[in-house]
Amino acid sequence: MTKAELVELIKRKKSFLCVGLDTDPDKLPASLKNTPDGVFEFNKAIIESTLPFAVSYKLNIAFYEAMGIEGWDILQRTVDLIPPGEALIIADAKRGDIGNTAARYGKAFFETLNCDAITVNPYMGEDSITPFLDYKGKWSIVLGLTSNKGAKDIELLKLQDGRYVFEAAMEATAKLGSSEQIMFVVGATQTEYLGRIRKVAPDHFLLIPGVGAQGGKLKDLQVLMTSEVGVLVNSSRQIIYASSGKDFAEASAIEAEKLQVQMGDMIT
Amino acid sequence: MTKAELVELIKRKKSFLCVGLDTDPDKLPASLKNTPDGVFEFNKAIIESTLPFAVSYKLNIAFYEAMGIEGWDILQRTVDLIPPGEALIIADAKRGDIGNTAARYGKAFFETLNCDAITVNPYMGEDSITPFLDYKGKWSIVLGLTSNKGAKDIELLKLQDGRYVFEAAMEATAKLGSSEQIMFVVGATQTEYLGRIRKVAPDHFLLIPGVGAQGGKLKDLQVLMTSEVGVLVNSSRQIIYASSGKDFAEASAIEAEKLQVQMGDMIT
Repeated sequence: MTKAELVELIKRKKSFLCVGLDTDPDKLPASLKNTPDGVFEFNKAIIESTLPFAVSYKLNIAFYEAMGIEGWDILQRTVDLIPPGEALIIADAKRGDIGNTAARYGKAFFETLNCDAITVNPYMGEDSITPFLDYKGKWSIVLGLTSNKGAKDIELLKLQDGRYVFEAAMEATAKLGSSEQIMFVVGATQTEYLGRIRKVAPDHFLLIPGVGAQGGKLKDLQVLMTSEVGVLVNSSRQIIYASSGKDFAEASAIEAEKLQVQMGDMIT
Repeated sequence: MTKAELVELIKRKKSFLCVGLDTDPDKLPASLKNTPDGVFEFNKAIIESTLPFAVSYKLNIAFYEAMGIEGWDILQRTVDLIPPGEALIIADAKRGDIGNTAARYGKAFFETLNCDAITVNPYMGEDSITPFLDYKGKWSIVLGLTSNKGAKDIELLKLQDGRYVFEAAMEATAKLGSSEQIMFVVGATQTEYLGRIRKVAPDHFLLIPGVGAQGGKLKDLQVLMTSEVGVLVNSSRQIIYASSGKDFAEASAIEAEKLQVQMGDMIT
């Protein structure tokens, strides 16, 4: 999916909502808990009910890997459920390794799984990122400043040249390709740094987790929006676990629509 | 495997060799290329021939994920091949994510796959590391200073307090647990920084890639060795692709033994 196609999709659905499929087998509604294919059936119902309101799905790979072989099967079948062009499919994998290994992760997520995007960890630098950029029409979403407590340990340390580590990571990454292929992860809880982020990445899309369960507010993100909208906001638990009853899919649609309506008002 | 057990294993085999199973389906010997289970058969032969000379096997997860579901099956069966207590099994996964997700990666690699150790990326800080430490008797091998070109982009930037980013990452990590559970990845090519590394991690085991194909020399690593040996040196391509003929397993044993003999001389 190109940047122009993503912007068109966002404007058509009046939404920049990404639904996080962090599906936990222990949290399935009772009606699905004892079915042999519960996680897949859950994903299927959530995708069907939220697709009108979402422009992206983010599959948290850890939740599937924890299930072993079965998890990879569910991952593949979940990706196959999403109609092409109707949502950007993100593998939230946060991979990062030397060149020949990064190339294998590219193959895993862009070819074998056929996702549109992968999240990437920049700690190891240039050659851990460039192999993902070899896939034209695919996206690398590189960690900038994350929403968690541990962000202070490395990302928010100050360098001798006055920059924060996260700024250095974003600047080094932005040099490797264009905003047609690179996005950044920026936590919604990090409001005091949002100005610095748009200076480093003026026209990049930002994938923003941390709204809802983690405490970030949608309205605070207006400052990050560009003429191309420029943001994807992820919500996982608030949507997919909106109800633990039989009405879980309907409840997820209601939560997704609530966010979509707020987002619609923010898109000019 | 505890630290005492690892040290005992190293002294018994007179080796600190880790064999990297970065098995590439395209690089299998002709005799295995057209067999349905070639990658597994290759791993099996390599493990059998190198086990007398190696104290650890490192499975580069990217190479298996690139094969999709089949890859996870091969990964599981490969782990099951290694006799308990005869080698430390490392999942070279370089994972790093917020707490609830890191916990899922812990489950994936320590429970589902039953590896002894996982490599971890410290960029996201404390809560991306601590969930792995909840597994007693298992190891977290956290990236310090890597051997690749991109190490200069983030890891080797200087902080305002005079430390390098990699030192800050190692110091923050070392505070989270003991050297009974935490190791660090240090590239063999980074010889000018080895002194700083032992200052930050005086009694931690170090997992050292970069010897052989990447240009690092074994003798340069003597300075990192402790009374408990304190190092695991990984070699992948030099061993597993020592021959592309029918004699690939025998050739891998010869290469592994060459390294083991050199290592035996370095262990006091």
